[in-house]
Amino acid sequence: MSQQDYDCIIVGAGPAGLGAALYSARDRFKTLVLEKFYPGGQIATTDRIENYPGYEQIGGPELIEKMVNQATSFEAEIKTSAEVSSLERLEDGRIGVHCDGASYAARVVILTPGSSYRKLGVPREDEFRNAGAGVSYCGTCDAPFFKGRKIVAVGGGNTAVEETLHLAKFAAEVTLIHRRQEFRAQQVLIEELMGKVNEANSNLKLRLDSVVTEIGGAGKVESVRIKNVKTGQEEDFGCEGVFIFVGMVPNTGFLDGFVELTENGFIRCDCGYLRTATPGVFVAGDCRVGASMQLITAVADGVNAAMWMKQYLRNPGWWNAPVSDWLQPGGW
Amino acid sequence: MSQQDYDCIIVGAGPAGLGAALYSARDRFKTLVLEKFYPGGQIATTDRIENYPGYEQIGGPELIEKMVNQATSFEAEIKTSAEVSSLERLEDGRIGVHCDGASYAARVVILTPGSSYRKLGVPREDEFRNAGAGVSYCGTCDAPFFKGRKIVAVGGGNTAVEETLHLAKFAAEVTLIHRRQEFRAQQVLIEELMGKVNEANSNLKLRLDSVVTEIGGAGKVESVRIKNVKTGQEEDFGCEGVFIFVGMVPNTGFLDGFVELTENGFIRCDCGYLRTATPGVFVAGDCRVGASMQLITAVADGVNAAMWMKQYLRNPGWWNAPVSDWLQPGGW
Repeated sequence: MSQQDYDCIIVGAGPAGLGAALYSARDRFKTLVLEKFYPGGQIATTDRIENYPGYEQIGGPELIEKMVNQATSFEAEIKTSAEVSSLERLEDGRIGVHCDGASYAARVVILTPGSSYRKLGVPREDEFRNAGAGVSYCGTCDAPFFKGRKIVAVGGGNTAVEETLHLAKFAAEVTLIHRRQEFRAQQVLIEELMGKVNEANSNLKLRLDSVVTEIGGAGKVESVRIKNVKTGQEEDFGCEGVFIFVGMVPNTGFLDGFVELTENGFIRCDCGYLRTATPGVFVAGDCRVGASMQLITAVADGVNAAMWMKQYLRNPGWWNAPVSDWLQPGGW
Repeated sequence: MSQQDYDCIIVGAGPAGLGAALYSARDRFKTLVLEKFYPGGQIATTDRIENYPGYEQIGGPELIEKMVNQATSFEAEIKTSAEVSSLERLEDGRIGVHCDGASYAARVVILTPGSSYRKLGVPREDEFRNAGAGVSYCGTCDAPFFKGRKIVAVGGGNTAVEETLHLAKFAAEVTLIHRRQEFRAQQVLIEELMGKVNEANSNLKLRLDSVVTEIGGAGKVESVRIKNVKTGQEEDFGCEGVFIFVGMVPNTGFLDGFVELTENGFIRCDCGYLRTATPGVFVAGDCRVGASMQLITAVADGVNAAMWMKQYLRNPGWWNAPVSDWLQPGGW
């Protein structure tokens, strides 16, 4: 199998990968982006974005198209339907990246595989995923769209509680549905939740020992079917939105053994320069520890990795250097 | 003097401050941005931006106007001509922020004062600062605009050498002018520079023991006056661009004693959650250690600070917690 050579290979063409590609290509590095599906990641299926600074409102596909054009205009190469199956350290110190039917090599690899929302897995969940249709996996992103509406949230961990509290600032009424009596969230979050629930005329309600078994509506969400797991009793519950907070899955399975992962599957790195435990391999975006998982922060992560990779290319010994102000453009 | 209360006060309305303001205000926190001059920082005077992902090309003032409108549409309050003179810890644990004639208080402060390029300080330097006119302080930003042109660079530190090497990929000819014989840059950078200078037909030339004393041209740069500091001899040197790399000054003088600064004046923080040594006080953008000093990374820094401040508001004890994947939206 022939091996094609690059300066920098980026694994994943979501926002982080496209940010990295733009900067790497602008610096005249021969840059390849390998994407399993098509560019954009989670953003490619987001209808309306209001929290990307610089655009008061823009569609996800439109923003991604702009980023793709921008990166390729500086000669970054993007290969779609190119799923990376494995990576390895080559004898010459570079990194080999293997797809089905093709192999590539580069001195630097930037890992930007992203993460995916864990689905609830109930009938009709996918049908209502478009913005405005009513199913969402991100309260920070979509809460303002549900101002004055009646909605439900599903989950019992930190994110579920935190996001439900956030949603209550916008929605007319939020009902948090959780399969157990006890929340897995931090105590401080639980206290805040219960304080809010117990306020007079609170707009935040709980349904414990309950699960959502189906989502209903014509074109958009109109109800969820709630089942009490103790009694078996079912009920159709009217609502205009369903926020699902049941987990996030970093797309890092193929990296196990090549870089260091946390038990949740996130890639370990130093948050300053985004270096993994594997020299020459940077990480950017939602799949790393310490990510705040916003669109703009993912893009900037990619840019940061592409900025710092120049230090490694110049001096591989830099890999273990502490974060300083000496390396800043300001540190002369 | 009356004191006005906020949830979050942001010091500086450059890209980092506006990113923080958007996210803080979207989360319904009562948010105040205090700006010494007018919004935008360095970007307000940048004519043409090509490296903000999502805009293939946009003017600095136009981008800033969009960011200002976006933040204020979520009810962030921006006060211009409001220079912060000092900050202090109040008895109730909040942070007092003092301007001339007004005082404010908040549980969280995000410091985004930015940094400024150090000027060369020669006649007509300011006259040519607009893009296209020929004076620039950022090779990464402006190199593509000088493709095929004859230019000069000034400086002898890491940034000067690194940026000059970068410029040589674009320009027809780059002459690096340095006041001494020896460069202060890292050895590895000097070797790379000299290797390039000594190539046959190199487009990279050096003028050592030399300084620029004046910039000349009609409407745009046409020459610089170079003086040899050993012989005193002067020469008019034709060129279309002057890149000045003589330092960066973080705008942090007013913070000395309130947060921890490096010897170069940058604000110390943990690069994961952007916490300074002072609880409740975050930092974002060019003025912090580990910043890669790009527009997009500054904006995202502000967003990150506004995301993580929610952890502090909920539980002040979090301030000393290590960076983990547990706090991510993905960490349940």
